[in-house]
Amino acid sequence: MATSKFLTLAEIAELVGGQVRGDATTNISGVGTLTSARQGDITWIVHKRYAAQLEQSRASAVLVPTDFGPTALPAVLCKDMERAVIGVLGAFAPPVPGPATGVAPTARVAPSAVLGNGVAVGEHVIVEADARIGDNTVLHAGVFIGPEAAVGCDCRLWNNVVVRERCEIGNRVIIHPNSVIGADGYGYEFYEGRHHRVPHVGRVTIGDDVEIGACSTVDRSKVGSTIIGSGTKIDNLVQVAHNVKVGENCLLCAQVGVAGSTTLGDGVVLGGQAGTRDNIVLHAGVMVAACSCVGQDVPAGIKVMGMPAVDSRRFLRESASMRRLPDLVSQLRDLASRVQELETAANDKP
Amino acid sequence: MATSKFLTLAEIAELVGGQVRGDATTNISGVGTLTSARQGDITWIVHKRYAAQLEQSRASAVLVPTDFGPTALPAVLCKDMERAVIGVLGAFAPPVPGPATGVAPTARVAPSAVLGNGVAVGEHVIVEADARIGDNTVLHAGVFIGPEAAVGCDCRLWNNVVVRERCEIGNRVIIHPNSVIGADGYGYEFYEGRHHRVPHVGRVTIGDDVEIGACSTVDRSKVGSTIIGSGTKIDNLVQVAHNVKVGENCLLCAQVGVAGSTTLGDGVVLGGQAGTRDNIVLHAGVMVAACSCVGQDVPAGIKVMGMPAVDSRRFLRESASMRRLPDLVSQLRDLASRVQELETAANDKP
Amino acid sequence: MATSKFLTLAEIAELVGGQVRGDATTNISGVGTLTSARQGDITWIVHKRYAAQLEQSRASAVLVPTDFGPTALPAVLCKDMERAVIGVLGAFAPPVPGPATGVAPTARVAPSAVLGNGVAVGEHVIVEADARIGDNTVLHAGVFIGPEAAVGCDCRLWNNVVVRERCEIGNRVIIHPNSVIGADGYGYEFYEGRHHRVPHVGRVTIGDDVEIGACSTVDRSKVGSTIIGSGTKIDNLVQVAHNVKVGENCLLCAQVGVAGSTTLGDGVVLGGQAGTRDNIVLHAGVMVAACSCVGQDVPAGIKVMGMPAVDSRRFLRESASMRRLPDLVSQLRDLASRVQELETAANDKP
Repeated sequence: MATSKFLTLAEIAELVGGQVRGDATTNISGVGTLTSARQGDITWIVHKRYAAQLEQSRASAVLVPTDFGPTALPAVLCKDMERAVIGVLGAFAPPVPGPATGVAPTARVAPSAVLGNGVAVGEHVIVEADARIGDNTVLHAGVFIGPEAAVGCDCRLWNNVVVRERCEIGNRVIIHPNSVIGADGYGYEFYEGRHHRVPHVGRVTIGDDVEIGACSTVDRSKVGSTIIGSGTKIDNLVQVAHNVKVGENCLLCAQVGVAGSTTLGDGVVLGGQAGTRDNIVLHAGVMVAACSCVGQDVPAGIKVMGMPAVDSRRFLRESASMRRLPDLVSQLRDLASRVQELETAANDKP
Repeated sequence: MATSKFLTLAEIAELVGGQVRGDATTNISGVGTLTSARQGDITWIVHKRYAAQLEQSRASAVLVPTDFGPTALPAVLCKDMERAVIGVLGAFAPPVPGPATGVAPTARVAPSAVLGNGVAVGEHVIVEADARIGDNTVLHAGVFIGPEAAVGCDCRLWNNVVVRERCEIGNRVIIHPNSVIGADGYGYEFYEGRHHRVPHVGRVTIGDDVEIGACSTVDRSKVGSTIIGSGTKIDNLVQVAHNVKVGENCLLCAQVGVAGSTTLGDGVVLGGQAGTRDNIVLHAGVMVAACSCVGQDVPAGIKVMGMPAVDSRRFLRESASMRRLPDLVSQLRDLASRVQELETAANDKP
Repeated sequence: MATSKFLTLAEIAELVGGQVRGDATTNISGVGTLTSARQGDITWIVHKRYAAQLEQSRASAVLVPTDFGPTALPAVLCKDMERAVIGVLGAFAPPVPGPATGVAPTARVAPSAVLGNGVAVGEHVIVEADARIGDNTVLHAGVFIGPEAAVGCDCRLWNNVVVRERCEIGNRVIIHPNSVIGADGYGYEFYEGRHHRVPHVGRVTIGDDVEIGACSTVDRSKVGSTIIGSGTKIDNLVQVAHNVKVGENCLLCAQVGVAGSTTLGDGVVLGGQAGTRDNIVLHAGVMVAACSCVGQDVPAGIKVMGMPAVDSRRFLRESASMRRLPDLVSQLRDLASRVQELETAANDKP
């Protein structure tokens, strides 16, 4: 990655809170991995086992942990590598493209909708009656904001995101393309020989600093709100059903499904493709392994795994036993015949 | 939820087929749960164990089952609570917003397309040549109807739904945002060192009263039709592959996948994230538990669970055994050493 | 399926490399399955067990394998049935509809974007600054091509596909509706009490002859590219995470999820709903069964199954043992009591 921006190694050290070792005037114009970095780029290396690869890299400088040892390249010694890498990636990131401030010619904004200062409304966007869009929010091309919906400040809704009527979105929220907020929940009652739709007159309420991936769906509640707590990050193709309450700072990885009226406490983590049944509670800090299926309440801080999900240590112990199950079958058969022999022998000697 | 509409308790009782107990002139203006209801709202309570919560509720009246016992609030005694709740939710539901009848200025309707009476075509909608849209159907902003496709009467297609060429949709069908009907099926033959696409010249045929969630996909068939039977309800992020036949009144919960050419009988229920392999038959009334994976035909009325899915009672018995498997391993080891001892003892006394 | 096109059986035989048996002048105007074929259609039959059904078919001719035996209908004997069926389906396939060559009136193409010869840009399409679209590529209505993105020649991007900035797509690539290429990867570091987004400054690079289904997502990398190798076919609702490398000619069936930085070798096949963890390698030719969850590297050519996925033969053996587990529990209990008796007897006779 190369941009037209240059920083000296000294400036980078200041940015990431690190110490320069080597030529502090080295000019850096981008960031790359050990293998993708080009001349002028800074790279990073966390584990000493990759040190040899550094010699082949075309990078001009390197971020390393403070205890890394000598490097052939000018280096910045960093106390916190994760933050340092985020820092340099952010410093050289090309600007995120998007529509210009104002309303694009093909967009339709209802006269009663309220747009804050600095709002950017892209092509083919629709903002319906009485909707409110906060300051500096960006609506990329094709976004739909339903009547009476509210989007906070400094949000970014990517292309074709649909936010249906009366839903509420906080500040600094990012929603990736083609996701749907506030579709009707999936609820029916069967009588008179057919499924009758339960009206879903509620909404979706999303806190601040939430991120939702592409092609994800958060359904509106029957009554009240489906809630996504502040700071929660949701990946692509995730389903959050009606009346679910997701706590703060949760992580819902790709293709997760949370069934209706289930509650996730703060800091819950669901691995990719994990699912929960409806009407249960996963208390704060619960971690669900990828591809697992949670069928009942889980106490705070527990890690679960499997289908049905159980304590992950138990799951791993059981899985290990499973590995030995075919052996157990033959051992048991062998043992049975030996017991049979002993019994026969015992009967023969009265 | 509050609207500008008022009903007396007597009117509500008539609506839901119930009996008033208390002041029948009480004015009701909305519906809420025990905790969300505000003054003027009616709430509902099904189980006596929630009776205490009723005392804290700000609701002005309550729906209860006929045998519920005394309540502090004016009540409507209901024989069928599920229908009664649907009734009051529907009575106070705000109108579903949507485009006005007629064709929005930015929509493009081909001259050869046929629109019925009362059709509403939203902004940026495209209706291609020879497509037909039935009376009173609503196409929300951004919908695409391909050439020669047919949509019945009283349908509602939400934003950005794509219906490709020649697909057929019945009456009173609802499709939620960003779903895709009639994309090419996933079929290839491998020869000459690469995968060759199998042409998919078929279509999708959807019956009456079907509902399909957001971001779901129903693929067109190779020849003939992929079929969704009348009354079937499909949730979000569901995949229905090419040449699948789904019966009537089925329920396909979120993230379900039905693989190619598989047949589901009437009334089949697939729990969330359940999957089926291709070319199998799940006969009428089969129920598949969430997160399960069906690998072979299932006879009518059976409940299955697991991966691979087996009869659910068997699955639960096996899972319970799994819980004891680590114990079994140690029991078996103990038993083996005891048998060994007995054998040694027996050999020592010839 | 009937079109206005006619081919004689002799022409069809030439097309599919087969031999006519019966009247070579028979006119054929379409293709159908045994049950859906109408008069004038050709059908096909692979297995002799379906021969009886041929007698009920209204088809006018049939494709059969060379060793099939006599048929009541005029036939074309084919050495390779799969190719022959693809051939006739393709011959009678109605033309794929799409926008006309040129730029539709409601589309917006940036002045600095470069369109090749014969490009078709549909209604409401947006092509941003410095994007490049190769010759004869078709962008259906509602497609979004971000700044500096590049799409090759002879591609077809269906409705509402979003290709974000700087992503690169090869030649002859098909992407089905509502899929998203190049959304930000899902990466955060937790410090100071909240999740911090890791900037994703990379892109997505898609090879030639790739096909991607509807509502699928391929995320951009942190640095460098998320890569989809040439000839790979991806189904609907699939997630390919940031920094993943997918080899050539892979098959990713519906609802598959590949987690971050994982590598798939050439020819890897992932069955429907299968998932992989992050940072692992599935070497060339690995096959993962549907609904399975791969947690570690898999050597080339191995078939795996289960959660966690193990060698599929082992999985099947273990599953079979599982079926017997409840029996084992009772056998073990029985055996324990018999050993107890033997021990008691042995102690009684000192």
